[in-house]
Amino acid sequence: MKDYIIKDPWQIIENQFRPEYNEISESIFSIGNGRMGQRANFEEDYSGKTMPGSYVAGVYYPDKTRVGWWKNGYPEYFAKVINATNWIGLHITVNGTILDLANVTVTRFERRLDMKAGVLHREVALTMPDGTQLAINAQRLYSVAESQSAALSYRIRVERGTANIILESGLDGDISNRDSNYDEKFWEEVSRSANEEHISLQLRTKKTGFDVHSRVTQQLLSGGQAIPVRQVVDREKYVAQHYEWVMKSGEEATLLKYVVILTSENHPRPALPDHAEELLHHIAAIGFEKLFIQQEEGWSKIWKDSDIQIEGDVAAQQAIRFNIFQLYQTYTGEDDRLNIGPKGFTGEKYGGVTYWDTEAYCLPFYMATTKPEIARNLLIYRHKHLQKAIENAEKLGFTDGAALYPMVTINGEECHNEWEITFEEIHRNGAIAFAIYNYVRYTGDERYLQEYGLEVLLAISRFWSQRVNWSEAKQKYVMLGVTGPNEYENNVNNNWYTNRIAAWCLHYTSEVIDQLASSEPEALQQILQNASFDAVEKDKWLHIADNMYYPEDLERGVYLQQDGFLDKELIAASDLPASERPLNQKWSWDRILRSCFIKQADVLQGLYFLEDQYDLDTIRRNYDFYEPMTVHESSLSPCVHAIMAAKLRKDDKAYEFYLRTSRLDLDDYNNDTEDGLHITSMAGTWMTIVEGFAGMRVRDGKVHFQPILPSQWASYSFRVTFRGADLQIKVNKVGVHIMNAGEKAVQIVLADKVYSLPAADILEVSHPTLAHM
Amino acid sequence: MKDYIIKDPWQIIENQFRPEYNEISESIFSIGNGRMGQRANFEEDYSGKTMPGSYVAGVYYPDKTRVGWWKNGYPEYFAKVINATNWIGLHITVNGTILDLANVTVTRFERRLDMKAGVLHREVALTMPDGTQLAINAQRLYSVAESQSAALSYRIRVERGTANIILESGLDGDISNRDSNYDEKFWEEVSRSANEEHISLQLRTKKTGFDVHSRVTQQLLSGGQAIPVRQVVDREKYVAQHYEWVMKSGEEATLLKYVVILTSENHPRPALPDHAEELLHHIAAIGFEKLFIQQEEGWSKIWKDSDIQIEGDVAAQQAIRFNIFQLYQTYTGEDDRLNIGPKGFTGEKYGGVTYWDTEAYCLPFYMATTKPEIARNLLIYRHKHLQKAIENAEKLGFTDGAALYPMVTINGEECHNEWEITFEEIHRNGAIAFAIYNYVRYTGDERYLQEYGLEVLLAISRFWSQRVNWSEAKQKYVMLGVTGPNEYENNVNNNWYTNRIAAWCLHYTSEVIDQLASSEPEALQQILQNASFDAVEKDKWLHIADNMYYPEDLERGVYLQQDGFLDKELIAASDLPASERPLNQKWSWDRILRSCFIKQADVLQGLYFLEDQYDLDTIRRNYDFYEPMTVHESSLSPCVHAIMAAKLRKDDKAYEFYLRTSRLDLDDYNNDTEDGLHITSMAGTWMTIVEGFAGMRVRDGKVHFQPILPSQWASYSFRVTFRGADLQIKVNKVGVHIMNAGEKAVQIVLADKVYSLPAADILEVSHPTLAHM
Repeated sequence: MKDYIIKDPWQIIENQFRPEYNEISESIFSIGNGRMGQRANFEEDYSGKTMPGSYVAGVYYPDKTRVGWWKNGYPEYFAKVINATNWIGLHITVNGTILDLANVTVTRFERRLDMKAGVLHREVALTMPDGTQLAINAQRLYSVAESQSAALSYRIRVERGTANIILESGLDGDISNRDSNYDEKFWEEVSRSANEEHISLQLRTKKTGFDVHSRVTQQLLSGGQAIPVRQVVDREKYVAQHYEWVMKSGEEATLLKYVVILTSENHPRPALPDHAEELLHHIAAIGFEKLFIQQEEGWSKIWKDSDIQIEGDVAAQQAIRFNIFQLYQTYTGEDDRLNIGPKGFTGEKYGGVTYWDTEAYCLPFYMATTKPEIARNLLIYRHKHLQKAIENAEKLGFTDGAALYPMVTINGEECHNEWEITFEEIHRNGAIAFAIYNYVRYTGDERYLQEYGLEVLLAISRFWSQRVNWSEAKQKYVMLGVTGPNEYENNVNNNWYTNRIAAWCLHYTSEVIDQLASSEPEALQQILQNASFDAVEKDKWLHIADNMYYPEDLERGVYLQQDGFLDKELIAASDLPASERPLNQKWSWDRILRSCFIKQADVLQGLYFLEDQYDLDTIRRNYDFYEPMTVHESSLSPCVHAIMAAKLRKDDKAYEFYLRTSRLDLDDYNNDTEDGLHITSMAGTWMTIVEGFAGMRVRDGKVHFQPILPSQWASYSFRVTFRGADLQIKVNKVGVHIMNAGEKAVQIVLADKVYSLPAADILEVSHPTLAHM
Repeated sequence: MKDYIIKDPWQIIENQFRPEYNEISESIFSIGNGRMGQRANFEEDYSGKTMPGSYVAGVYYPDKTRVGWWKNGYPEYFAKVINATNWIGLHITVNGTILDLANVTVTRFERRLDMKAGVLHREVALTMPDGTQLAINAQRLYSVAESQSAALSYRIRVERGTANIILESGLDGDISNRDSNYDEKFWEEVSRSANEEHISLQLRTKKTGFDVHSRVTQQLLSGGQAIPVRQVVDREKYVAQHYEWVMKSGEEATLLKYVVILTSENHPRPALPDHAEELLHHIAAIGFEKLFIQQEEGWSKIWKDSDIQIEGDVAAQQAIRFNIFQLYQTYTGEDDRLNIGPKGFTGEKYGGVTYWDTEAYCLPFYMATTKPEIARNLLIYRHKHLQKAIENAEKLGFTDGAALYPMVTINGEECHNEWEITFEEIHRNGAIAFAIYNYVRYTGDERYLQEYGLEVLLAISRFWSQRVNWSEAKQKYVMLGVTGPNEYENNVNNNWYTNRIAAWCLHYTSEVIDQLASSEPEALQQILQNASFDAVEKDKWLHIADNMYYPEDLERGVYLQQDGFLDKELIAASDLPASERPLNQKWSWDRILRSCFIKQADVLQGLYFLEDQYDLDTIRRNYDFYEPMTVHESSLSPCVHAIMAAKLRKDDKAYEFYLRTSRLDLDDYNNDTEDGLHITSMAGTWMTIVEGFAGMRVRDGKVHFQPILPSQWASYSFRVTFRGADLQIKVNKVGVHIMNAGEKAVQIVLADKVYSLPAADILEVSHPTLAHM
């Protein structure tokens, strides 16, 4: 855990040059606009620790699978969103010496991410080896208004001495991925052009053939005068303009660089240069100042719907905004072909884009903070991949249209290649089914079921029905050889969570069939016929669901994570020496596997999803049993624990988990922020407040709240949309204040009591009234 | 399964050109002499299916580990005995067309491995596209008398037409491994020289720096005249001599090529060229004909000690000789730095050299058929690696000198990199301990224990004592997260075999301590002190051994392979459709894992090792339970089943398993002979006859036999050495005939009755007398 980020409600600030943390900061200070983004690499050359990264959504390379020992059914490739053209890099020499922060004396340094405005700032004062003193001020943004464009302003001021400066600024396409299985380069050049007006570079990904056209226009101004381009540089995969000038002490010059980045996914290939030229004109005409204003306006719209305010705890406030900011930098929902990559545009790790994270952790955030179509699109994304999921299951020996959704994908095909996950971490199918249920529960959009949902549910249920087997010994259905959400157990039998979500899915699919049988019999008939489904199959499913085996410890009154769990030495994670954490960086895999330590909520994940089916004591017993053994080395763990702790009125634990999830990257809890941010878990942070502290649930078509206020906070407030209502909720020491800012009346269940709240009206309830749980 | 090899008692014959099987035949017809060897690649160019392979023992490359996802504790590299300089390759053109069997009409083809003489023959008649007809006759050998040398005779005869022939014959070091993790080349050139007298090439392995110097002298003779070298070819990693001549119908020419291959492991590096020159002179002076005679003499010495004769079943006779032949081609025991690679010199798969195969399957063969030092050296090999095994265990979190021997190694370091095997298939430690027991039991060499054995046993026992944990739930010691010998189960709890061999090892180590305490108290004191071992630790070990948990099915009266085995669907392998076999080529890994199907003996392996501790009914019940579910997709499986079936008097099953193990490669049972031969399992074939049909055991210092005769055979006979006795055993329809060809009297237990057999005397007992078991 680290603690070097300065606390501020709207800004992320690093106020000292810490080369050892540079890759961590490059992740934290990442910027993006849903269509593209980048790590906070320095503009100028840097020979210290750095991982360059600029990414364009949807542009991926199928990197040939690398495994030790091939297993049947492994995918041929891992699709990776790859490092793309570097448009920010500047090569600067000052009096013949390269400007490189690793080789100068840095006297002042500030990196600052302004989340309100959506701009990354950096200020540096430095002394060159020859004594020349300079001040640098850089600002850059990815426009939210014009999502194919970005801009950089880079000012150099001579503070002491005279500086003969050479500056080369261009587009560098000679980039590679750190994460490349066979050290391949993923791009080839299509075309380039460079003159004094503009420079452009069009690259194409090998194999997948995505074209990315980048085009830059820039101006170097000093004392109100433009410094002319001295030279145009033009070589394989690289184009740049080259400036050379002299400044005396007190003089300064500013480079204004505008870039547009267009892809063949969004433009006909032959039209790319023209469209780029047109857009670049438009952006340059707007100019830097106005782009800034637009950017702040754009972000203020996002903040209006999605901000959470916390009073009295600046670390908590900063953290929740950081989480929301990074989520909207990663995924805006505008393009239904995209999904939410676990590292967004902040790193290479995990490649791919879509994990079960989207359904299990991100969906609630997008359902509540933006238009309902966006959540719907996230579901339809999986419907589009249904055929591929069926093929994926066929590879593993399943038949008759059973579907196994991939563990990781970008186009519906499986990318993951560790048997214990690829073939065994099948609970992902459950989360995809549960998301359909969750969406319909939240939105009331039952048409979704007949349009898309049931088809997916049928194929997933069919998978479960083939994946279980009847155990003569147990006289129950068992599910052998799975990996549950807790990936610190592999190839276990009867993972409680997986068995439970499978049985739930079989029941839910049957319910949906029954519902549609009365509401939409013809549509249902058609769907069932297409799936060759008959009543016998439904009976079989119900027989499985009703006779599923669940490992339990009757003495302790807890569900067992899997068969044999009680053979382990049960030790509290708090008894582990700090030097052995995180386990995944210190212990060998077999040691982790045979220990009791839990990477992320597993039984508890099931109790979280299916909370309404369990009484509070059951939830408490399980929480009390598992939480002490949980090491939270998955970013997706603390949020579930926070929600559960809040429900169980373990307020301090809830607060501790809130900090852990919300500041996971800011404070680098798991010693891996340098790889990139944990984007999908950031939606879990949002849930921590809304479902955790505020206790929001949807039951029987009504929204429920059961708010508590962490003692460390004066208040918190947030906004959710729910079936046309627009609710602004504030919880403070006095009680709860809810305003219906929408145009429709809404019924709200507050601590189990139903209130009617007309449009534009306010509901205020004091804590004593709430405290009857 | 295939059936194209012609049956013959002393020869392996393929009498038709089958390009689709060429890689299989290249494996089967491999030749070698323990120091080096090669696949039966064609001499001339071949554009069809082929895997070139020439290997030099002990010369390996540490190929950088390739994994999908790195786990702590994985080794940095996989050491591979690599494809070395190709000395047999000839480039031949006939009237301007390359001679390539893939592009000519083959009218006659015979490949023949003469196991009595140790020579590979090939005869081909062919028609070139221009109508020219040729006959080729090639013979080659790796000398057993001069183990650093080999020779080739290659005759071309024109049968029709006139042939302008260009022949280039040299040394090709520009070779690569098919199995290279990152498509690297593993060799660099040190030096080369070529003139009309000789050619030489010295290569060095990258990273490991082994020098291999190859030197050739050759003669091309036609009509009693030497055809002169036309040209010397000399380029990076390649040297050759080039001939060009014309032959008319009826004329023939023969190339006689002598090669010596010396390594820096056996010669000071600077002396390599001189030593090679000297040896090459010597070999060429012997000449081809005499080399042939020497070769047959050399092999006849080996056959004298190790041959097994089977009358009445040529397929069985051919097969057992093939197994013995390949074993002695792979490992002669002359060099104690070497060990027995699972593919010998017949392929690249499995890299490395030493698996638990050596201890579990090969040791008995070498104990009984050759000098006792050789078996002792195989054990000392592990003693030399003890420190590395301790370091290996430390990487995984074990302490205080606990040792985990590697799954695969060449120099004591672990090479394997799949967590479920590398970290979990720890039963290998048990086989290494058992081999010590087995060796002492057979030879009576108790000094071995104090000299080497106990140190190894202490370190292994310490590993077991740390690897188990106390289960509160079971009130027993359990062993979680292991992979047993049946690798079709991964990461299971309480694998019966592993728990059993661990407990056995703890007991045996205690017994050895107790024995030495009375026989060699001072030596013992020293060993225990070096290991910081005290009586408390021994008590702890005995507590573990006495309180080990063993999964059992009391109803069926069988041990369970692991916890949860009875939750599986129990299906007989015979019910699987042929199209789904072998499972490892047809099913996804998860499907294999959750099925009941067993790759190789697991519970039965334990009952085989510790047979004396179990009654026959227990062995029978377990055999009857597991055998039907066993798919024998490990080469090491049928032999154990054959031995057990013979013991249980399931004679037909024993015979079936004998054929399966002995003809595994000849008939390509597992559809993988093309990767190379299953060398280590060939020692298992030997055990099938000696321990299986003949029922040889050693108990209380005496050798026991309990012979049965498969009804398909008229007789079988073999020879074993036992504590100075040299026993020639023949079993036929009448009974057993044992001759003591040694110089010492020996006591023999035949069907539980003790007989004294003086030197040079014969014991004959008829079957009825035996049949009282």
